[in-house]
Amino acid sequence: MGPDRRLTDLLGIEHPILLAPMAGAGGPALAIAVAEAGGMPSLPCAMLDSAGIRRDVAAVRTATRAPLNLNFFCHAPQPEAPARQRAWRERLAPYYRELGLDPALEAPAPNRSPFDAATCALVEELRPAAVSFHFGLPSVDLLARVKATGARVLASATSVAEARWLAQHGCDAVIAQGAEAGGHRGMFLEVHPDQQPATLALLPAIVDAVGLPVIAAGGIGDGRGIAAALALGAAGVQLGTAYLRAPESLISPLHRAALAAAEAPTALTNLFSGRPARGLVNRLMREQGALRDDLPPFPTAGRALAPLKQAAEALGRTDFSSLWAGEAYPLAREEGAAQLTRRLVAEAREALARISPGPAGA
Amino acid sequence: MGPDRRLTDLLGIEHPILLAPMAGAGGPALAIAVAEAGGMPSLPCAMLDSAGIRRDVAAVRTATRAPLNLNFFCHAPQPEAPARQRAWRERLAPYYRELGLDPALEAPAPNRSPFDAATCALVEELRPAAVSFHFGLPSVDLLARVKATGARVLASATSVAEARWLAQHGCDAVIAQGAEAGGHRGMFLEVHPDQQPATLALLPAIVDAVGLPVIAAGGIGDGRGIAAALALGAAGVQLGTAYLRAPESLISPLHRAALAAAEAPTALTNLFSGRPARGLVNRLMREQGALRDDLPPFPTAGRALAPLKQAAEALGRTDFSSLWAGEAYPLAREEGAAQLTRRLVAEAREALARISPGPAGA
Repeated sequence: MGPDRRLTDLLGIEHPILLAPMAGAGGPALAIAVAEAGGMPSLPCAMLDSAGIRRDVAAVRTATRAPLNLNFFCHAPQPEAPARQRAWRERLAPYYRELGLDPALEAPAPNRSPFDAATCALVEELRPAAVSFHFGLPSVDLLARVKATGARVLASATSVAEARWLAQHGCDAVIAQGAEAGGHRGMFLEVHPDQQPATLALLPAIVDAVGLPVIAAGGIGDGRGIAAALALGAAGVQLGTAYLRAPESLISPLHRAALAAAEAPTALTNLFSGRPARGLVNRLMREQGALRDDLPPFPTAGRALAPLKQAAEALGRTDFSSLWAGEAYPLAREEGAAQLTRRLVAEAREALARISPGPAGA
Repeated sequence: MGPDRRLTDLLGIEHPILLAPMAGAGGPALAIAVAEAGGMPSLPCAMLDSAGIRRDVAAVRTATRAPLNLNFFCHAPQPEAPARQRAWRERLAPYYRELGLDPALEAPAPNRSPFDAATCALVEELRPAAVSFHFGLPSVDLLARVKATGARVLASATSVAEARWLAQHGCDAVIAQGAEAGGHRGMFLEVHPDQQPATLALLPAIVDAVGLPVIAAGGIGDGRGIAAALALGAAGVQLGTAYLRAPESLISPLHRAALAAAEAPTALTNLFSGRPARGLVNRLMREQGALRDDLPPFPTAGRALAPLKQAAEALGRTDFSSLWAGEAYPLAREEGAAQLTRRLVAEAREALARISPGPAGA
């Protein structure tokens, strides 16, 4: 798919298509299917403990000998903010009452742990072909240990400044995460979600700024988008939203139905975790404003929402659910992930042939 | 440039590159230079009276026999809102004091008039090859009169719904305006600027939804972006920001310097006119919030800013100036518009050749 072999050679894969690691949506089944079709499988590890990571890696390796990417978060954990947590609960109290819930109710909320010495030891044990990071990079010593295993290091940049920083700090390839991307923005130097450039503007600027292979992420809905990313200078692409409707994806039936309906627009919101992420616009985002500056820190903003989400979902409503999706989600189809990967390759080739200047260079 | 001749045939031009009509920045010199290089020249008419339009059209036609596009706005004029105007002045009063200005001071502010019977008569008189509209389309009878002149009708869509509406109401081609685009969003059915999709997601969805040639606008900074748009299915592209630093552009020296510095991010803001538009983030946007819902209606929000802009610019400051720019503005160069157009064509061909699958379809 195109003559650029930098990424396929770097990662040892057939097609320069990476499965985006989607915490909560991706797991071994999705990874195995993408690997089967020649793409790069990724496992999201930020919401797993060591046992969970070992289990998922083993599941993939039982099925395929393909290279594997493990993804971790690198956020600096913030101190608890009880006053903000209380204020957020108070703001949500009318919803608790509406659903007949005690406003003091607690429910399990997803945790997201940053990469640390224990996870680093796990990488040394499991020796994945690649490790990708979101929200920056781990400390210099941990990163050195990761690189010493021979793992290729990838990380997300949402600006040219972040890409330069990643290149200077030892990344082997940079993921240019355009504003269209679903889920959490990888922002680690940038602080304004409403000033994040989209892939079409970001990608060529990062390609010009760093000497590394650049992986395009965000807004790529099908093979035409892959061809476009290659035209912009990408060595490969990372797709997440395109895979959300695959049977191998772990999203809820309600999330699946909302994606299939393709009615809601997407927007960036920090209501669900405390950090900006792109998802389908729902009631909470409409009524509270999608981006607030008074929330408890990442990832604890989700705690107060957990009982609401649980109760509303039991009634078939997504009013309080994070429905992560990238802007191109209406192009996604319900399709097995291996077949989808093969379709993406075929469509990209078709698009490249369609716009090919031909032998005369006309 | 690519095998798709739909747009070049429709408009009678050599290359499928349209100069974006930029009110305040574009004029005859820019149009003539783009025409000279085989692109489609456009004249922004929304801020001109009949005499100004006649003058600019005559200037272009003296220099070139190329087809010409005239651009008009189609907003529904809103009633004056004195209470909002007063509140906005009060909010700005500290800036007036800081600059030593009387808070009641008035200064000339740009007006933007919607397309009406008088401008329609002008189109019938001047017979441009194409007429493009922003903020929807004029009334059915006015549009019929425009089409009866033989002019091709183009208009901007910021969503699939808007594109479908334009196709159903008689457009000959749709301009898919991605969220990256500089200047005013063409939104006419959509109301949420923070939910507008970027070109990578919007363009292929519009291509799939309408049977018309689609012109990509927004985020295209150089020939790589043009190649990407063609990969996504565009029949052509419309570029504005790329031309802002050309000597033929009419922007202020301060605007030009801010673009050259390439330091400020861009954001959508409605502070300068009452409607959302993309520009470089400046002091007013930072301090007042870039998007407010309490402003006087378009285009009257700019009135209260005019004295501040004038006084600050005299001090070399852009604190209160609208610095329109698309997200890809750091890719723009200081270069004559004809040479720039030729470079875009050459770069696009280069990008297409670089990603070409080659004779073997590898």
